[in-house]
Amino acid sequence: MDTLFSHVSIVTMDDRMSVWTDSFLGVTDGKISYLGKKAPEEQPQTIIDGSGMVLMPGLINCHTHLPMTILRGYADDLKLQEWLNDYIFPREAHLDDRAVKAAAQLAIAECLRFGVTSVSDMYDHCDAICQAVAESGIKANISRGMTMFLGDEFDFEKFPACQELVALRDKWQGYDNGRIKIEASVHAEYTSTYQLWDALAEFAINEKLGMQVHLSETKREHDECVEKYGLTPAQLLDCHHLFDVPTVAAHCVWLTEEDMRLLAKRHVSAAHCPVSNLKLASGCADVMGMVKAGMNVCLGTDSVASNNNHDLFEEIKAAALMAKGKTGDPTAVPAEAALMMATVCGARAQGREKECGQLKLGMDADLIMLDFTQPHHIPCHNILSNLVYAASGHDVVLTMVRGKILYAAGKWPTIDLAAVAKELHDYAIPKVFADDPEEQPQ
Amino acid sequence: MDTLFSHVSIVTMDDRMSVWTDSFLGVTDGKISYLGKKAPEEQPQTIIDGSGMVLMPGLINCHTHLPMTILRGYADDLKLQEWLNDYIFPREAHLDDRAVKAAAQLAIAECLRFGVTSVSDMYDHCDAICQAVAESGIKANISRGMTMFLGDEFDFEKFPACQELVALRDKWQGYDNGRIKIEASVHAEYTSTYQLWDALAEFAINEKLGMQVHLSETKREHDECVEKYGLTPAQLLDCHHLFDVPTVAAHCVWLTEEDMRLLAKRHVSAAHCPVSNLKLASGCADVMGMVKAGMNVCLGTDSVASNNNHDLFEEIKAAALMAKGKTGDPTAVPAEAALMMATVCGARAQGREKECGQLKLGMDADLIMLDFTQPHHIPCHNILSNLVYAASGHDVVLTMVRGKILYAAGKWPTIDLAAVAKELHDYAIPKVFADDPEEQPQ
Repeated sequence: MDTLFSHVSIVTMDDRMSVWTDSFLGVTDGKISYLGKKAPEEQPQTIIDGSGMVLMPGLINCHTHLPMTILRGYADDLKLQEWLNDYIFPREAHLDDRAVKAAAQLAIAECLRFGVTSVSDMYDHCDAICQAVAESGIKANISRGMTMFLGDEFDFEKFPACQELVALRDKWQGYDNGRIKIEASVHAEYTSTYQLWDALAEFAINEKLGMQVHLSETKREHDECVEKYGLTPAQLLDCHHLFDVPTVAAHCVWLTEEDMRLLAKRHVSAAHCPVSNLKLASGCADVMGMVKAGMNVCLGTDSVASNNNHDLFEEIKAAALMAKGKTGDPTAVPAEAALMMATVCGARAQGREKECGQLKLGMDADLIMLDFTQPHHIPCHNILSNLVYAASGHDVVLTMVRGKILYAAGKWPTIDLAAVAKELHDYAIPKVFADDPEEQPQ
Repeated sequence: MDTLFSHVSIVTMDDRMSVWTDSFLGVTDGKISYLGKKAPEEQPQTIIDGSGMVLMPGLINCHTHLPMTILRGYADDLKLQEWLNDYIFPREAHLDDRAVKAAAQLAIAECLRFGVTSVSDMYDHCDAICQAVAESGIKANISRGMTMFLGDEFDFEKFPACQELVALRDKWQGYDNGRIKIEASVHAEYTSTYQLWDALAEFAINEKLGMQVHLSETKREHDECVEKYGLTPAQLLDCHHLFDVPTVAAHCVWLTEEDMRLLAKRHVSAAHCPVSNLKLASGCADVMGMVKAGMNVCLGTDSVASNNNHDLFEEIKAAALMAKGKTGDPTAVPAEAALMMATVCGARAQGREKECGQLKLGMDADLIMLDFTQPHHIPCHNILSNLVYAASGHDVVLTMVRGKILYAAGKWPTIDLAAVAKELHDYAIPKVFADDPEEQPQ
């Protein structure tokens, strides 16, 4: 046994939502090898005292754009089109692989610090992102978000983003025994055309890749699609076989009930991003409706440019609160359900439900430990309630993926944060903000 | 000069929202005595290195029920009446002064840890709360929340809660040069009758006390009042002169536009409690409407039983997000406005605008320092944006009231947290949960 957590409260997230107090969890060769009320007889290499601590599965952030850390706080409180066209897109145009890698490393450090052990990311310069993921030890489903506008000539073999996807699959698909998965991605219905949808669907089906897409995020995009095609974005993309492969659809704010039933039938997971959706005033997804229709609903931060952090505990609480606010029913999305969205449902959305999302014998040791000794966790009548309504990602004192500690007590063994910050300061930020000198960070 | 913060970023919250980077703030005899880009010539007793840190005014939590920490996480995700009648009220009935003091001390430790330097509290056993406030060094406007039901015989001189109020005024009003203020409090329109309103209004007017009240928190209470009296709760209580003294009205979720204009005319401050209102599915107050009507809007956590923590940074972010969600306008309640609600507007609501809420020469040194070196604050394009959208109360590394450090780096110089936790464990929790043995905290 490599590591033993002793005298710790264990939130297993198993089917019975079992919580074990003052218990023991052992890790051997990256897997959970022991769970018990008593200490194991086998002598572990390392013992981590879990007194006053809570152990739970690592969180799964199912919708990120990691490198957008570089734009954190650069533009807020703006109308969506102004925000995108005048601030976000012009900056993103300056990104290169080197800048993206540094920004992704920063994002991963933040994710690990807040207890996230796996992400589903959609962005550009994905080889650099995969490099950052590979070095850090975090798990990730990485997709190259593709746009294509009418008039673009389209040939899958020659379309640069498709070439990038093929190269990603060749180089990274299944890396480190499946720690990295490459997925296809249509950025959104309103930013692309059917040639791309058909080609990507075919590629994903043939290559057995998952799919990531933004779906019905804003009322405008949803309504314009209905007006143009007589079909909702979900219906339209379904006609083009996008959902024939395991798909994570981010946002799903404006889905119709019919959409929900369709997506449930297609086993599409919704990545609910309540903080981002509020910040951009896009609305609030009907989580209860999606769950009742049979959809798998997981959580995402979206990019930090519309959040502005990667603390998924904020999404857990926001999901529980917003469901109550939206329905007027304080029993909607209780604590247990919100925690499931961030763990079990996230693992399912990533196709990782057999390897993580729960603390079970034989599963990967993807887990986090939270400090429950601080005033905001006293008293602790109910650990699950405290995790949802009182906790914060800041309570995380240890993050482990496959038995390897990737964050503990202010340190990242696989990431040199000072070097990353220096690279951002010396290279990435000057490059991205070169023509906007007023916006040099403070 | 007692203390000098050096090389720190200073968010003054002054009328121009000035932010000073790499600057100096000095404290002498509990007041801010120096603000400058250069170090002062005078030699300070203590220098606190503020490199990578942000200094801002301490936050003001304008609606709390501090001792309800003891019920944190005891009952969640329930219908309001079930929550109150089956869980909250039966437990509260067991509280005594000793239990209340311990629970209030815990709450104050939590407030200080999250950067709150002043609270407006409404509860029972207020002498014990004042004791806890007095010993801790925090500022507080303390009120005895009063209920009175039809059939209760009412005589101000003989009504126990009124006797408690008179005793509080005698013992605590103006304590420590105004650090404690005693205020009158009608719990709510629907939990009392006009005899109490008239008597408390008269007492508050004569004694120059402020007033605290719950107002139009739920649709039901608002509608039932209109049905019963043909007046909204705001109109009705105004007829009984409740708002003739400076008043903080908590919640204000269901105010009409006419109510807002009336309350603005009466200089009533609204304590917006977005997290609690969502958790109990009460709705979301129309902050933009209240501000446009001319009301002063501040923030409150409400009790941790409906939150479940005292981290007011969550309310700051929630206020900014929910205004956008409610109006569909992403420019609603921008970062600056959300920060004002937690500082300047809070000080105004407490009648403390001349002493705190801003970092200005001559004001009390009520301030907090936040660590901006962690990944979620990199890069820092805009300090105000990061404070609202990326920060957390966990970033607070130092909390000072009147020049005295009350929290720093995990330590509370005026509160023995271990002793408080022991008192809760050994005395308060057994007392309150004696007849509910299943609910002994984990």
